[in-house]
Parts: sequence; C-alpha cells; structure tokens
Amino acid sequence: MKAYRIDSGAGIGALQQFERASAPLGADQVRIRVRAVSLNFRDLMIAKGTYLRDPVAPFVPASDAVGEIVEVGAASSLWKVGDRVATSFFPHWLQGAPTPYATRDAFGAVVDGVLAEEIVVSEQSVFAVPAHLDDAQAATLTCAGVTAWNAMFVEAKLQPGASVLLLGTGGVSIWGLQLAKAAGLQAIVTSSSDEKLVRAKALGADATVNYRTTPEWQDEVRALTGGRGVDAVLEVGGKGTLQRSIDAAAMGGTIAVIGGVSGFAGEFDPFALITGAKRLSGIYVGSRGMAEDLSRFVGVNRIVPVVDRVFGFDQARQAYDYLDGGAHFGKVVIQVAG
Amino acid sequence: MKAYRIDSGAGIGALQQFERASAPLGADQVRIRVRAVSLNFRDLMIAKGTYLRDPVAPFVPASDAVGEIVEVGAASSLWKVGDRVATSFFPHWLQGAPTPYATRDAFGAVVDGVLAEEIVVSEQSVFAVPAHLDDAQAATLTCAGVTAWNAMFVEAKLQPGASVLLLGTGGVSIWGLQLAKAAGLQAIVTSSSDEKLVRAKALGADATVNYRTTPEWQDEVRALTGGRGVDAVLEVGGKGTLQRSIDAAAMGGTIAVIGGVSGFAGEFDPFALITGAKRLSGIYVGSRGMAEDLSRFVGVNRIVPVVDRVFGFDQARQAYDYLDGGAHFGKVVIQVAG
Amino acid sequence: MKAYRIDSGAGIGALQQFERASAPLGADQVRIRVRAVSLNFRDLMIAKGTYLRDPVAPFVPASDAVGEIVEVGAASSLWKVGDRVATSFFPHWLQGAPTPYATRDAFGAVVDGVLAEEIVVSEQSVFAVPAHLDDAQAATLTCAGVTAWNAMFVEAKLQPGASVLLLGTGGVSIWGLQLAKAAGLQAIVTSSSDEKLVRAKALGADATVNYRTTPEWQDEVRALTGGRGVDAVLEVGGKGTLQRSIDAAAMGGTIAVIGGVSGFAGEFDPFALITGAKRLSGIYVGSRGMAEDLSRFVGVNRIVPVVDRVFGFDQARQAYDYLDGGAHFGKVVIQVAG
Amino acid sequence: MKAYRIDSGAGIGALQQFERASAPLGADQVRIRVRAVSLNFRDLMIAKGTYLRDPVAPFVPASDAVGEIVEVGAASSLWKVGDRVATSFFPHWLQGAPTPYATRDAFGAVVDGVLAEEIVVSEQSVFAVPAHLDDAQAATLTCAGVTAWNAMFVEAKLQPGASVLLLGTGGVSIWGLQLAKAAGLQAIVTSSSDEKLVRAKALGADATVNYRTTPEWQDEVRALTGGRGVDAVLEVGGKGTLQRSIDAAAMGGTIAVIGGVSGFAGEFDPFALITGAKRLSGIYVGSRGMAEDLSRFVGVNRIVPVVDRVFGFDQARQAYDYLDGGAHFGKVVIQVAG
Repeated sequence: MKAYRIDSGAGIGALQQFERASAPLGADQVRIRVRAVSLNFRDLMIAKGTYLRDPVAPFVPASDAVGEIVEVGAASSLWKVGDRVATSFFPHWLQGAPTPYATRDAFGAVVDGVLAEEIVVSEQSVFAVPAHLDDAQAATLTCAGVTAWNAMFVEAKLQPGASVLLLGTGGVSIWGLQLAKAAGLQAIVTSSSDEKLVRAKALGADATVNYRTTPEWQDEVRALTGGRGVDAVLEVGGKGTLQRSIDAAAMGGTIAVIGGVSGFAGEFDPFALITGAKRLSGIYVGSRGMAEDLSRFVGVNRIVPVVDRVFGFDQARQAYDYLDGGAHFGKVVIQVAG
Repeated sequence: MKAYRIDSGAGIGALQQFERASAPLGADQVRIRVRAVSLNFRDLMIAKGTYLRDPVAPFVPASDAVGEIVEVGAASSLWKVGDRVATSFFPHWLQGAPTPYATRDAFGAVVDGVLAEEIVVSEQSVFAVPAHLDDAQAATLTCAGVTAWNAMFVEAKLQPGASVLLLGTGGVSIWGLQLAKAAGLQAIVTSSSDEKLVRAKALGADATVNYRTTPEWQDEVRALTGGRGVDAVLEVGGKGTLQRSIDAAAMGGTIAVIGGVSGFAGEFDPFALITGAKRLSGIYVGSRGMAEDLSRFVGVNRIVPVVDRVFGFDQARQAYDYLDGGAHFGKVVIQVAG
Repeated sequence: MKAYRIDSGAGIGALQQFERASAPLGADQVRIRVRAVSLNFRDLMIAKGTYLRDPVAPFVPASDAVGEIVEVGAASSLWKVGDRVATSFFPHWLQGAPTPYATRDAFGAVVDGVLAEEIVVSEQSVFAVPAHLDDAQAATLTCAGVTAWNAMFVEAKLQPGASVLLLGTGGVSIWGLQLAKAAGLQAIVTSSSDEKLVRAKALGADATVNYRTTPEWQDEVRALTGGRGVDAVLEVGGKGTLQRSIDAAAMGGTIAVIGGVSGFAGEFDPFALITGAKRLSGIYVGSRGMAEDLSRFVGVNRIVPVVDRVFGFDQARQAYDYLDGGAHFGKVVIQVAG
Repeated sequence: MKAYRIDSGAGIGALQQFERASAPLGADQVRIRVRAVSLNFRDLMIAKGTYLRDPVAPFVPASDAVGEIVEVGAASSLWKVGDRVATSFFPHWLQGAPTPYATRDAFGAVVDGVLAEEIVVSEQSVFAVPAHLDDAQAATLTCAGVTAWNAMFVEAKLQPGASVLLLGTGGVSIWGLQLAKAAGLQAIVTSSSDEKLVRAKALGADATVNYRTTPEWQDEVRALTGGRGVDAVLEVGGKGTLQRSIDAAAMGGTIAVIGGVSGFAGEFDPFALITGAKRLSGIYVGSRGMAEDLSRFVGVNRIVPVVDRVFGFDQARQAYDYLDGGAHFGKVVIQVAG
C-alpha cells in the first residue's frame, strides 16, 4: 500500500509517496482503510522545519484521517468491521486534562501519521463520525474542529449567548464560527478580505470586521459588544495581534492562544491582563473525549464543516502548496480513496 | 394605584384587587410602571396553602413583572427613566451561589410581589430584557426562564450537543425546550397529549414520548439516546416520576429537581444513583446574574418564549384558574398596562 | 500460586482458597506479587448476595491490592520491576467523568479481583503509592480512600475551610476525616460510641456528635456550623439517615450518597432539596486519575490511613467476619506476603 | 477625626495627615473606628504615579482596614455595634466573576480609602475577621490574602496535594505559602536571601530555591516536583521572571499574573504556552465572597498571617518607606488605634 513521508525541514517539495508494507495488527488495534485526510497549518510548519526542534528520521505526515475499519484486533471491543471513524490527534490522550504521557505522541509528528492508504492504530485512538458528513468533511474534526471545541467549550467554558471573536478564516476560525452559531453564541469574524467576510456572514457571523480597513479592530469589537468586549478570542496568531486580542476581550475573558498562521511574538501589557482579570490559555488540540463530544454536537445539529478544496491522493504537494498560499476559506483535504 | 393581594391558603377565590398608595422611593431604588406579570405554579401553591408553612399577613402576589422605569432614586446609577426591565426572583441574590441571605426574600411570597400597577424595588433587583420581545413574553424570563437556565447551564453544565429530557409542557419545560434548541442540545419532550407533542415538535423537539401510551417512557428515552440516557432531566414533579427520571439519565447525568406540578414523593433507589454516578439537584430559581445571562442568550438568538394566553389586569382570578386547569402549553400572563 | 474465590450470595463461609496457575502476561500488562489486600463493605455485600443482581460463576474477590511489580509486558512503559503499586478500582476508568465503558469492569465483582498471591493486570490499572506507608496502609487507598476523595474534592469541590460531616467511623468516613483535616477543612464526626468519638477527636475531628444520645443530630451539626450546616455530607447509609443528612447540609451543599453500611431507603422531602438548592450525588468510587491525585496528597502530607486490624492470608474468612461485626474503626486488611 | 491623603504621583513624601469631618451615615452603611491598616505594593505605586494613568484629586489612600463598627445605618441588617470587620478591596464586587461594575471602585485609588481614624462604608463592603487574630494581622486579609486565595483556589482551582511556586517573600507570597500549607499543598519558595528562605522553611515551605545562586531556578523547581513542574505559580512580577515561571509550570498549569514588585515585561514564547496547555491568568484581588471564604479558612485552621512590622498612625511615611525598601518578609501594617 502507498503512503507519503516527509523530512522535517526539507520543505514541501521533499514530501514523497512510497510503498509501505501492511503493519501487523496488535490485539487492541484496528486496521483502517483511509478515505480522506485533512491538512493543518501544523503540517506546513513541520515541512518547513518550524515545528519540530530536533532532527528526526522521515515519517508519515498528517494527523486527520477518516476511514473505514477493515480489521479489528483480537482484544478489541469498541468497533466492528465497516465502522467509519476518524483519528484522534493524540492517540494516548483519552479523557481529562492534558499530561505529558497523554500528549507524548501525536499522529504525523515524529510518530507516523495518516497520509497513507492504510493505517493501524489503537482502537482507543479513533472516534465515530457523524453519518451526515462525507469523508472529506468528516476528516476535518480531528485537529481544527477539536481545537475550536477545546478553546470555546472546555477552556473558556462559554455559555449560550456568550460572544466569541474569530481571527481570520482559516480552518480553526471557520470551525469556531460554525460551532459558535450552532451553540447560540454571538460570533464576530475578522479578515482582510471583504469577500471572505461576506462568506462568513452567510455562515451566520453576527458581525464582521475588516482588519485592513479598520486597523484598530479591537475598538470595533468592543463597540459591537456594547462596550463589553468578547468572552473569548480564538487567537490563531499573527504579527501584533496578541495585545489587540487582549484589548478586545471582556473582563474575565479568555484569549485562547492557538498559534499558527504567521507566528506571533508573545508580547503584552501585564497590567491589562491583571485589571481585566483576563487569561491567555494555550490550547493544544484536545483529547479523544473532546472529539467525541464535538462529533455528537456536529451530529445533533447537522453542522457541515466548510471544506475549501479537495485534492487527489497523488496531489499531496499541491494540497500543501495551496494551504501555504493562504487563499483558503475553511479546510483543505486530500481524498485518499473513494 | 391598584394592586392585588392574596391570603396564603385562602384559595384563588380570595385573591382581590385593592387600592394602594404609591411607596416612597429609596436612594438606591427605582419606581416601575408594571406592564405585564407572568404567573407560575408556585403562585397557585401559595393561593392553596401548599407553599408557605407558617401563617402570614396578606401580601401582593407574583414574582415576574416587566415594566418601564418611571423614576430613579438619588443614588441609583444602573438605569434611566424609560428603560424596560424585568424583576429578578430573589431581590438579594445577585451573583454566585445561593445563600440564606441571598434567598431570604422572594417577590410575592410573604414579601410583596409585583401584581400591581406600580412597584418600587432596588435597582439591583431588576434586569434589562431583550428588545425583540413584547411585554407579555418578556415577563416570563424571571422565574420559568431562569429556572430552566439554572438547571441546564449552571447546575448540569450541559455542553453543546448534550441531551435533555423535558417532562410535560408547562412553563419551565417549554422554556427548557426553547433554550435547549437554541444552544444546540438534543431535546426530548414527554406529554400525555399527542397534540401537545406535535406542538413541541414544531418548537424543535428532537423526539417526543407520550407517557400515557408509553408508561415505561424511561426505556424509550434511553433508546432515543442510543442506550446512553440523557445528560439532564428537568424533573418538574409528578407522582412516580422521580425513579423513572433517574433511570432515563445517562451515567454522570443530572436530575434537576424543580418540583411543582403535582407534588411528588422523593423516593428512589440509592443503588441506581450510586452505580450511575448520577445527581439529584434541587433548583431554586436563580440569581440576577443568571437572569442577565439568560436575557443575553434570548437576545442573541431571538428566542420568543411561548405565551399560552394573556389575561387583562381585572381577570387575575381567571388567569389563576386557567393555570390551575393545566391545559396550558407555555406561560400564562396578565397584561397590567398597554 | 494461591488465591481465594467467592460465590456471590453463598455467604462468608463459602469463601475458599484454591491453587491457581500463573496467568500469561499480555504486552501492556504487568505481573504483581500481592503484599496486602484491603476489604470493603462491598466485599461483604457480594458474599451475602446483596450487591450483584444476577447469578455469576465464582470469582476472585476484593479490589484493593498493593504489591510489587515482578514482570512487565513487552509494550509496557509506565513501570519497572520492583515498583510498588496499588490497583485502581475500575481498570478501565482512567481519567475524566464516569462512563459505562470506563466502569464496566471492577476488580472483585464478576471480574476476578485481587485476593491472590499474584495478579496480572493492565499497566494502566495500577498507580504508585506513597513511600511512607507500609503495605497494609497503602492497600486502603483504592476504594475507601478514592471514594472519600471523589466525594469531597471532585463532586463537592470543597474548598479549604469548608465543612464536612462524616457519618460513623468505617473505612470511608475515617479516610474522609483524615483527608479533611490535611486539606484544612472543618470535620464533624458522628458515632454511637463515645469511645470511637474520642479516637476521632484524636485524629483531628473539630467536633463530634453521638447520634444515640443526640437523636436529632442534624440540629447539633447545624449548631456546630453557626447555623449554616455543612458543605458536604459523606452519607454512607443507614436507616433513616438520608433526610437528616439533607437537613444537616448548608444551602448549596452536597450529600454524597455512598451507600453501604446498613442499606438505606432513598426517601426525602423534595421541597427541602429545592429550597436549599442542595444536591444528592451518587459516588461510584473513582478513576485512576483520582487515585493518583489522592496518592500525591497523601504523600505530600504524610497522611497515615487508619488500619484497624491486619489478618494473615489464611485468615480471610475471619477478616470478613470481623468487618461484618462492625466494631472496626478504619480499615480491615489481609496481609498476603511479607 | 484624622486621616491621610495622597497625591497620585507626588511621591511618598507628599503623603500627609489632615483633619476630616465625620461623614453622614447612609441607610445601608456602617461607621467603623479603624484600628489597623495594612499596606500593599499598589499603595507605593499610587504614591509614585505608576498605578493611576490619569490625573486625579488627592484622596485618602490604602484599602485594607480592620476596625470596630460604631454605628449602623437604619436599613442595615448584617452587623451590630461592636462587631470587628475588615474592608473588602472592591466595595461593589460581592460575589461571582469580576465585572466592570463590580470593580469600578476600589478603596484607596481615586475613591477614598481607609487610612483614617474613621470610615463610613456600605455594610456589604466589609466582612467578619477571625477572632484569633489581632488587629494588625486581621488587616492583612483584604488585599494580599484575598489575592493569594483567588489565584490558588478560585482561578487555579488547586486541589489538595497540588504544588505551588511562590516568588519572593512579599505579602502575597507569604500569604500564599501559609494558605498552601494549611490546605495540604506542596509549596516551593524562591528568594535571593538564604536567611529569608530559612524563615520560609520555618513556615512550612517544602522546598526553597535561591534565585541568585540558582539563576536557572525554573529547572530546579521542575526537579523538585519530579520533573512535572508546579501546578501554579504566583507570579508577582520582576524583570525576566515570566518565561521562567511558564517553564516552571506543569502541563496544564496556571501562572497567576499578580504584578507588582519590580514591574515586568510581558514577553513569553507562545509555543511553550500552547504545547504545555498552560494559562497566564490576570488576578485582580477578589470579591467579598472570596474574602469571606478566606476568613473562614483562616479561622478553621488558626492561620496567623506574618506581620513584618507595625508602625504608629503618625508614622505612615516611614511605613511606606520601609515597604519601599523591600527588606520585609510578610506584611507592613499601620496601627491606627489601640
């Protein structure tokens, strides 16, 4: 069967397909025929060498796969052949708070990932996906969906009617917008493109701000919330956004530090953090339990995540390049099998 | 100005209108011209003598008023003349957990309530109501709306996608249904009337169960949630419902004990509570902070609470009788002024 | 190697030793030479047939073992030979909230338990125990210690300075007392024996109540807390205690329903639950994560759990009988190896 | 009666005593004869002009007073003449989360404070203090005690057995140490003075680190916690401490940003925050509810806060200068009356 491998820091061009033998199946494992793989900004960082700090042997990239279970291990009890599941980002983080043990492995970074026709993983490292989603859509829950869920509902504990600010229109932000609206939140979206803001409005955004034409966008966000500020910001990174995000937050609000798009300097005014009783919270994707909660929520509300573009299995480099271009709105996916 | 007074235990027939002098205005108080008053099951219990245990002098009944501020005290800073506000159930319970101090007074029980043309109350005992609601609708937030909010989002801490069971179609249950759907929950409603269940479906109920034709309704509720059971039950009371509610709840679930409709015996199997790690939580309406959170949620999502019927100010006894008849679906309101 | 087996419902007399072959070691398992086993009231219930509802083949009883790891599976990474560990009550409940999957197996009920010279278990089903404890003491964390921890610090979320009521002087109550004092809580203990109350005082109880000489003990508990009532009750069961426990609790307080000693009827006044905003919470032991948190707490504070009496491995029936007699103060332990 | 006034930014030397007329007593107010006033680093910042941003008329400084109630307003119900109480930092923040309304006024910043022989304040802005404390000790709960409580038990939600790092030996840190030990936590203290570290040990510190002789103190803190890092840091500020505090924290840990001693730049590595799932939480003192919880905890455990030195009412400038010198260990207090 075929798979891709990547050499951390060698660039997108070094991504290459290779032939890999089927792995033996452990007693508590399942074998999955992969159908779709979703890419994340982190996969770009790995290719470019800005994610992993130490040298490492080439590995199979990507964390987000949806596929069909084709074989179950002798001691497995959770799944049966034919079930459709997605991988959970950290195979050992099942429930509860993050720990070094739980997060020591993550698919597609050092440890082999999922950009392959077949994967063999622990039965506890996958979760069921909603039936109303096609494979490409379902593949986007693993990292971007869970990150937005963790930030808004686990860390910030947003209650219905609370307000959230989504920066830009990348995968996490658009997931955040869709989750926010289905949960009855007030959602505000920023972008430098009016056209993208129109699309955000169509997805339910209560308000939008063009940060190019409104450089002091944090003031506009405060005005849009009656002077209060938002209860949470999904801070996906970018030059000079952190202090503005803090200023855009309400007293007691949470700035979920997710990182990503353009790398950001962590500089801020501690006095504003103190007198606002605000918190900056690092969000490290999330657990399988969060993935299950997200999946249930998506299913109950028939949320359809936004897939910007789907590439073929042989077009993996093009998919990486397209994501790198930054023109996307929502998620970029590679279809592995029909 | 005119008001009603009630004699605890003397019955609905003893409810009578009287002429009351305007009260002087304290420095931190506001004077409100009442426009609508919503009734609750508790008001019936007071009339019938099943709520208050000790004898007490007649008082002005009812807790839920919406009205316009017509005068503000010298030290008041929260409101201006013309603001439309609703009363909070407990005038001293502002934020945080309930305490004896916070709940020592409640409008319309011993302490004078709001069934009057004018009331004078602390500026901190009222909250702003959403602009899209008419007065009758806005009057229903105070007790039934806040109770449902407290049960689902404060005590049970339901996350988006969680499931909730609403027993019957009284005021709290229908509020619960509407909040659940706007917050992205799975909502299941029971009733003995198929016609009411059709109306619940129209309000968004994901599933309904007729408890007359399905006496073992707890089994049906489990089946409707894939065998898991619901994450919360709004247990409004009734003969023999408590153990079924416990059985209908998922492991770790919350049965919010709200009481009310037909008085219920608190009998249950402790073993089921222990091995299910379930909790029975007494819900005592809620704080002004909860009312504000609810009001914001209703505003963001343009929720329109269901008012079953509106009576005139001179028809207060008829309104009580109608509520007592039990044919209502949603809330019963008295219009005090236009 | 030797083990005991029990026939559910056949009585303590049917408990018998037998010769058992060593089990093969799975890849993620560890082999443990058992040194001490602590008994719980639940083990008595199993012997007497009041715990399991369906007939089941005989199995090895007991859940609480401390021992030394003598062999680790090929894929195990958490432990090394020589580590001293204790079993976690539910081998699959690792972190987070309880689920049917997490609690489907429990050592010593249907599934084989730990009253044996050697056990083979998943590496994730054991936790490290504090070095300052001897084997008998360390064996008591698993069920009684974790139950008290879960009730007080997970479910009731008691903060330093809060008050807790411990009913009687059995294993969970004495663990509760010791944890309460090390955590800076106010602890009140009841018993029918003045001699036991003296011992509770010596362990740090802030106040004690003899429920035989003070039958309205809930009033005394309220008086001892300045009229407020306690923030949590560890309700271990008993005829007619539930309503008194509710009355002894403060507004917003938690009655942790643990069950046990004499079986109790779950009857209570719902009105008291509602107007007190109190909760009855079923406590089903706890997760391995809770066991680790408890173990750390015990280690930091050098808490020494109270072991009432230690029996030899050949005296298992006598140990059961002694526990059944109810004269104990703290835990009853069987020493399996030196 | 006599009081002090301060001119923001005019320096400690500009602090001066003056004669002030007794204020009239509002209906919900109490008159207090002040007995002791505790100083905070914030009072120094106000004097030096680094706290308030806008010019303001001179006002009475300081937030922390303990005194005796000598008169109660007509509508007051919480207190009686003779009660000993302390001021709560924010007179309007009673319960729950911080809001702009709750924190709009704080004693001794713009609004008049408590460095006076007599003050008149809302009956809800004071709380009862433990009987075992003398006036100087009791005066230290208001700001430093509540800040440490909020950071550790409200924001970081530390459970018994968790670990906390206290930076330095100022008022908040020593309060933090004392609370930590009474609550069963593991406490680690840093200082540049071995002599102060000996005193911290005597107060119960589990470990100490001299940050002068161990400049990479974060590594030592990790080593002291078995490589895990601490669950919370009380980050009171200082050049270059923030990133080290983040590195000293365990995965999922909280760095409570309290600010103060030497002003700090808010610079950090966002990647460390993300992959550690850590949070930086601004702590803005706390509510009256927190003060009451703290006071109860101090009472139950007979905690005696460390008062470094007590000055007379006429020695206010010397007290400020002494605090400014930084040689203190614990709190600096001004005795106003015997």
